[in-house]
Amino acid sequence: MRRTVPRKKGDVNSVIKIRNFRDLSPEEILDRRDPGGEDVRRAVSDILSDVRTRGDAALREYTKRFDGVDVTEFKVPDEALEAAFDSLDENFQETLHLASDNIERFHERQIPRDYVLADRPGIVQGMRYTPIERVGICVPRSPEAFPSTILMNVIPALLAGVKEIAIVTPPDRNGNISAEALAAVYVTADPRVVSVYRVGGAQAVAALAYGTESIPAVDKIVGPGGVYVAEAKRQVYGRVGIDMVAGPSEILVLADGDSNPVHVAADMLSQAEHDTHAAAVLVTDSRPLAEAVQRELEAQLSKLPREAIARASIEHNGKILLTDDLAEAAEAANRLAPEHLELCVADPFALLPRIRNAGSVFLGRSAPEALGDYFAGPNHTLPTSGTARFSSPLGMYDFMKRSSFLYYAPDALAGVADRIADFAEREGLHGHAQSVLVRKEKA
Amino acid sequence: MRRTVPRKKGDVNSVIKIRNFRDLSPEEILDRRDPGGEDVRRAVSDILSDVRTRGDAALREYTKRFDGVDVTEFKVPDEALEAAFDSLDENFQETLHLASDNIERFHERQIPRDYVLADRPGIVQGMRYTPIERVGICVPRSPEAFPSTILMNVIPALLAGVKEIAIVTPPDRNGNISAEALAAVYVTADPRVVSVYRVGGAQAVAALAYGTESIPAVDKIVGPGGVYVAEAKRQVYGRVGIDMVAGPSEILVLADGDSNPVHVAADMLSQAEHDTHAAAVLVTDSRPLAEAVQRELEAQLSKLPREAIARASIEHNGKILLTDDLAEAAEAANRLAPEHLELCVADPFALLPRIRNAGSVFLGRSAPEALGDYFAGPNHTLPTSGTARFSSPLGMYDFMKRSSFLYYAPDALAGVADRIADFAEREGLHGHAQSVLVRKEKA
Repeated sequence: MRRTVPRKKGDVNSVIKIRNFRDLSPEEILDRRDPGGEDVRRAVSDILSDVRTRGDAALREYTKRFDGVDVTEFKVPDEALEAAFDSLDENFQETLHLASDNIERFHERQIPRDYVLADRPGIVQGMRYTPIERVGICVPRSPEAFPSTILMNVIPALLAGVKEIAIVTPPDRNGNISAEALAAVYVTADPRVVSVYRVGGAQAVAALAYGTESIPAVDKIVGPGGVYVAEAKRQVYGRVGIDMVAGPSEILVLADGDSNPVHVAADMLSQAEHDTHAAAVLVTDSRPLAEAVQRELEAQLSKLPREAIARASIEHNGKILLTDDLAEAAEAANRLAPEHLELCVADPFALLPRIRNAGSVFLGRSAPEALGDYFAGPNHTLPTSGTARFSSPLGMYDFMKRSSFLYYAPDALAGVADRIADFAEREGLHGHAQSVLVRKEKA
Repeated sequence: MRRTVPRKKGDVNSVIKIRNFRDLSPEEILDRRDPGGEDVRRAVSDILSDVRTRGDAALREYTKRFDGVDVTEFKVPDEALEAAFDSLDENFQETLHLASDNIERFHERQIPRDYVLADRPGIVQGMRYTPIERVGICVPRSPEAFPSTILMNVIPALLAGVKEIAIVTPPDRNGNISAEALAAVYVTADPRVVSVYRVGGAQAVAALAYGTESIPAVDKIVGPGGVYVAEAKRQVYGRVGIDMVAGPSEILVLADGDSNPVHVAADMLSQAEHDTHAAAVLVTDSRPLAEAVQRELEAQLSKLPREAIARASIEHNGKILLTDDLAEAAEAANRLAPEHLELCVADPFALLPRIRNAGSVFLGRSAPEALGDYFAGPNHTLPTSGTARFSSPLGMYDFMKRSSFLYYAPDALAGVADRIADFAEREGLHGHAQSVLVRKEKA
């Protein structure tokens, strides 16, 4: 039956083509090349060393150049947080509280457990978790500082026990941060723990990595940003920790033939409107759905305020892939390892065990990705560009670190000293062997 | 009393000086600059793109150039593993089994738990862990491939459920891998899961990241190496995951005045013999101990087969720091965030809660670091260069990733759709709002 549908017809006037999944490699399906490059690398490297050397003076100059505003005082006064919250309508105040509660409920289940093994005479060993002491959070502005980014980063950091949180976000041309963003700080955090600074871009990352007169250095930097922030995080990695180097947003909608094409197209466009490099993919075993979504995309695109961005994104990285069945569709998802994966199928829980590589999975026909972006509870900071093959959503874990510990009583060490010395000598490390044997002599 | 001791006298003939901790910043205590640099960066970049383009042919050329041997077949035949094990004496065979059991017992406590929240009508959300599918392990040779590195990386990967493990290690001039290393593979792993390849350096990292005719591409690369391997891992990060960019080894011995200076010096030298950039630090509240260790270092140095390396390391990054008391000594440890921390004190468990930043902590007078390097159970892959402020020992966690999941029934979504749409509009994302509102229309 598939062959009777004229394949070319729909494609001619469409922004997106329908192709068979099995004919394609992941590289042929999506262009996930790093949008940065040598120019960005060099520009960022210059900014980092300038801020490292000149501190606040450099920050002021870059803020003037990139944000078009003279900032004299980087820190937002603590009183401004409550004032911002009070300025919002009651309904959105309640939304912020509800979202914050949902996110906290989801993340508090992530408390990692210390453990100890003490079941052999004279031997105790185990693992302890401790919070990272100081964390910096980058919050982009596009057009306003995202309150959701604040909730999604601050809440797990606080749950982990981080003692000092510095939020950096670029000011608008009047030097202000949006009331929504400041209110999001207000509902989540104690001002003794969290400070907000009016600075963004690579220069903010530099300030967090090296410290300036106004902004304290931190141990780890998290949060999203454009190519400059991503490159800056990559360059300071090692001196400080980072959460990930985030690429453009991605959605893969896996849908069966009973899905509503209006919903599927809307979900794809919700990702495409983020930026021109975003990716929106439909994988389906139904050609009629594929064609209906193809038409719907065109129809809905023209109604979007951010049409230009979304259209460029769909033209570049919008894809519709046909598979033989849902099992093959799940395999397509695993191969692409998308940031967001929707399972718009009759029984999404039955399909879930087949999914191995995905940042966050949205189950069923009433869980559009936007539900998770702001409100439901799971984190919206997710691995992009196929990195869900090896990395994970942001969580409380990312704001803690582990230390192992090991105790041997003298007798316990004496019992294994010769084995350890032998092992060390076989690796050519005589000094290692000696450190055990000198203790034996005394015992 | 401290002032009556002639401070300069001991220093004149010693490889190491005694200084007061509180006069120094972490940067003044240790030189932890990246030993790589622009030359290494460029050389590695060339190797990576060459292997990516030419595959096995490039691997063969680099192996000839850097390891001095023509390798025709990279994969070590499976039969060679058992043969290597059989060639070893029974005592070391037993040591490998005991070490393997200890490491497995310690790591199996790290199984992370999936969780689900299903306590509100129409809403189910949670977190699932899945193993990373394919992992590459770098094993350095110095002078022989380290069997301990194999145990410490393969065991947690297998426990996590990794399906394909590729071990890369440079061959000697006869094209061989040491019997000890192959035997370590034999005791831990099923040959259906683990393969060993005769290739090392940046070229091996390239093979694992891009794949060649003989070596499959993997999802994550772990394991230690010199500056070339470290830089190669840094450059392929993003395409594949990496465990960490490891710097030179470090030990900080925190010792009270009752410690045996012979033991303390031996432990410092066990780290110093690793390489000339290694760091060995004593922090103590006892000047007599400091001076005794100072003398002992000189005495023991001259007996080490690797004296030249250890002496250079001690001269460059060997330090003895005096503190007022043990609490200040613990603070010194937290500031330096060492890879290995020994607490050579009367009551090490009482001091442990003061330690916030350290990769692995060795408690008491009978737990030299070498005990943990080979045998006891905790992992020996640890954060170096102060990165224990934000990162952790290798564990089962590093071979898994998480995916969150989220289900809302239609009614549950309808109840919050307006809030989400409002939130999205406030972030300027109309398409996000639409993806929720189109579902409301139908409901």
